[in-house]
Amino acid sequence: MTGLVLTLDTMNPNIKRVEYAVRGPIVQRAMQLEKELQEGVKKPFTEVIKANIGDCHAMGQQPITFFRQVLALCSYPELLNDNKFPEDAKDRARRILQACGGGSIGAYSASQGIELVRQDVSRYIVRRDGGVPSNPDNIYLSTGASDAIATMLKLLVSGEGPTRTGVMISIPQYPLYSAALADLGAIQINYYLDESNNWSLAVGELRRALEAARKHCNPRALCVINPGNPTGQVQSRQCIEDVIRFAAEENLFLMADEVYQDNVYAEGCQFHSFKKVLFEMGPKYSEKVELASFHSTSKCYMGECGFRGGYMEVINLDPAVKAQLTKLVSVRLCPPVPGQALLDLVVNPPQPDEPSYSTFMNERTAVLAALAEKARMTEEILNKVPGIRCNPVQGAMYSFPQIQIPHKAIEEAKEKGQAPDMFYCMTLLDEMGICVVPGSGFGQRDGTYHFRMTILPPTDKLKIFLAKVKEFHQRFTERYS
Amino acid sequence: MTGLVLTLDTMNPNIKRVEYAVRGPIVQRAMQLEKELQEGVKKPFTEVIKANIGDCHAMGQQPITFFRQVLALCSYPELLNDNKFPEDAKDRARRILQACGGGSIGAYSASQGIELVRQDVSRYIVRRDGGVPSNPDNIYLSTGASDAIATMLKLLVSGEGPTRTGVMISIPQYPLYSAALADLGAIQINYYLDESNNWSLAVGELRRALEAARKHCNPRALCVINPGNPTGQVQSRQCIEDVIRFAAEENLFLMADEVYQDNVYAEGCQFHSFKKVLFEMGPKYSEKVELASFHSTSKCYMGECGFRGGYMEVINLDPAVKAQLTKLVSVRLCPPVPGQALLDLVVNPPQPDEPSYSTFMNERTAVLAALAEKARMTEEILNKVPGIRCNPVQGAMYSFPQIQIPHKAIEEAKEKGQAPDMFYCMTLLDEMGICVVPGSGFGQRDGTYHFRMTILPPTDKLKIFLAKVKEFHQRFTERYS
Repeated sequence: MTGLVLTLDTMNPNIKRVEYAVRGPIVQRAMQLEKELQEGVKKPFTEVIKANIGDCHAMGQQPITFFRQVLALCSYPELLNDNKFPEDAKDRARRILQACGGGSIGAYSASQGIELVRQDVSRYIVRRDGGVPSNPDNIYLSTGASDAIATMLKLLVSGEGPTRTGVMISIPQYPLYSAALADLGAIQINYYLDESNNWSLAVGELRRALEAARKHCNPRALCVINPGNPTGQVQSRQCIEDVIRFAAEENLFLMADEVYQDNVYAEGCQFHSFKKVLFEMGPKYSEKVELASFHSTSKCYMGECGFRGGYMEVINLDPAVKAQLTKLVSVRLCPPVPGQALLDLVVNPPQPDEPSYSTFMNERTAVLAALAEKARMTEEILNKVPGIRCNPVQGAMYSFPQIQIPHKAIEEAKEKGQAPDMFYCMTLLDEMGICVVPGSGFGQRDGTYHFRMTILPPTDKLKIFLAKVKEFHQRFTERYS
Repeated sequence: MTGLVLTLDTMNPNIKRVEYAVRGPIVQRAMQLEKELQEGVKKPFTEVIKANIGDCHAMGQQPITFFRQVLALCSYPELLNDNKFPEDAKDRARRILQACGGGSIGAYSASQGIELVRQDVSRYIVRRDGGVPSNPDNIYLSTGASDAIATMLKLLVSGEGPTRTGVMISIPQYPLYSAALADLGAIQINYYLDESNNWSLAVGELRRALEAARKHCNPRALCVINPGNPTGQVQSRQCIEDVIRFAAEENLFLMADEVYQDNVYAEGCQFHSFKKVLFEMGPKYSEKVELASFHSTSKCYMGECGFRGGYMEVINLDPAVKAQLTKLVSVRLCPPVPGQALLDLVVNPPQPDEPSYSTFMNERTAVLAALAEKARMTEEILNKVPGIRCNPVQGAMYSFPQIQIPHKAIEEAKEKGQAPDMFYCMTLLDEMGICVVPGSGFGQRDGTYHFRMTILPPTDKLKIFLAKVKEFHQRFTERYS
């Protein structure tokens, strides 16, 4: 075709720079392999096991019954007359519907989100943070956490050349951040997590990265993911304090991605919200540091990715900027209302005196216990493979093991124009039907190679998965030695 | 507060320029008045009637039973064992669930949308357009139509200074367009609809606007809304042909916002999709002109705004750009899956041989008949008011009447620093409890004043509404004469 208006040469150059490995070429190849298997093409495996994305239900995790009952009642309120539903589910549904325009989840909500849901989110935060106050006016519901993160970054970006906004992100990172920054034409400032110390975050490294960046841009924000994605670490309270102090000293806007706040498995680890620590550090910090923290319905024990529910809480945001934020989100009208309803249930689950409580707690506990077991198993099995080294999966849903790639394999990858870890992962996929994401999609120190895998496959399948990784790594290492 | 990182002075300057009148200051004032009424504050009215936004369910429109039954079944598949649900609803739910990861609407879908839904959308388009082919690979599901429109605009924007991308939009326009262009820092090129000719679109005016714009930017896209928002006109087939020919001659990417495609009321008017007309014009056009057309679950007879469902179809998009588009949408993972499920029902409703057909048709027909009656009534009553002139509401859900504002009122508005139509609408709200949006939020010819109102209030309430507008306009005119 010739004479097209929109071509690679004429399109938005920022978008060309966007990358999102979690759904990149490796996943397209996996889908192609699945299609070929369905069509009867012979492969060295009978199924593709996908551990590329934190998609819980796709890996067989069952939804929480209570949540889905209430969502069904909200969708088709005729069911409120059905005595098969427990009374607490009906009460929740009535309460949510009353907060919707015309009593329907088909109406737009306020752009910031349904007021009732924002109130419930605030109460949840107060409980979670041991009484630290939370104001519903500071809560913005969102279309998954990604939406809110991208929106906050968009507000922050200004300037040109040496005054262009720089944003500090961890390496390895979740590629939403690099993608959003590329889209906005903002400057990505990498700070490296310490792999030799359980992927912890050291303030010295933050300072190094910041000082280097100040020579060519205007660093204005610091993003932290805790529990970590793709690295699975859980930050200590001390570390969070250090980060907050650093942000205060260096005048940085803090963004805390806390979507895995219920996913903490390792003994001695505990989730501390940035908000809570900030307030416990006293008014010198709690009245000064600007913080946006993010949560989602997609992870934790519910794993309801498809509903695209989420929220952010903003602290110390300039009221004039808040008005701008409210205006900006109004252009997209509102987050999906079924996702808002679901979020309301997540922050306001069945209580001990309610009929659905015991089922809810059993389901919740079972999911989190299975994840904890799979986290442990993943670390244990991978660390038995010579040439693979893996930190404990303290939290979240991922392991990010380091892999030794033989020199000859690196050479072959280079000849093919591929990153060495992409070559490794593609070969793993083609030979074993195992789908993981190369570390280069998340960032890693030069000369090191990793992959990210989720711990979501069912226990039996995860065992097969890990055995296949082991077999492959040995074979791959031999082949290229 | 001092020393904040993010202030009006340091925030993204593009975002400051974003405006979205449909949820602007007038709506905030309306909400405040509602709160005061609830608290017992005495007002010259007992309720606020809102006609500011096309939010059907909020105005009392009932959801389509079949759609909500299937959504309840998808949310809580246990209900598939319930014999209270019709078999066709169960079949649809099973079919949708089978197309979801792990059989759950809580799983992420493919970023482009569930393949089955995209296939159903394609079949719908083929039926709608009398056999013109449609390829599911060209369908992108979205979070409402707004999301897809903003995404396409984002792809199109490049260049700086005189090469910066310009996008032609109708005036009056739906403010999503001006907001998205401001956000992207693109150049908005206004072409005016002809109010004296039922808000029709004339190619001469397109040419004038284009030639003027070429002196300072690079015009690359032409956006058309049909049926029109806020103007309610339905374009003739001839007009669409003219626009396509113009786009082909002038090398413009066409964007057709067709979210009101079922909302056509006026006799002699018919919806023609840009896609269909393009293909009927033969390969000279159908193989050349780049077109993206948009649809939504939020309008038409279903009005399911809260689910944020929608799709776009792209025609003649450069395959390399398509790959970039697919990559870009993958960063946000996927559109909300309940919205995708709903969209599937909209494009694949009950068939004549299915048990839900007659109820479905009765509900659909009743909604559209009521809208047609309200469209007629709005035009008739407003045109009886001296100083208000209103084109027929041929389609969509809005009237955009022109109002004569006395000179003294214009002076008073200027003293207050308000646009004259904002002053008019604020006074209308404060004195009568009637909430409409000033024409300046949509754009209008200098020296003319309008407001946009929806025709969505229930018939009885709409009568009261129109009587109040009449009473107010007479009183306002007398006061300032």
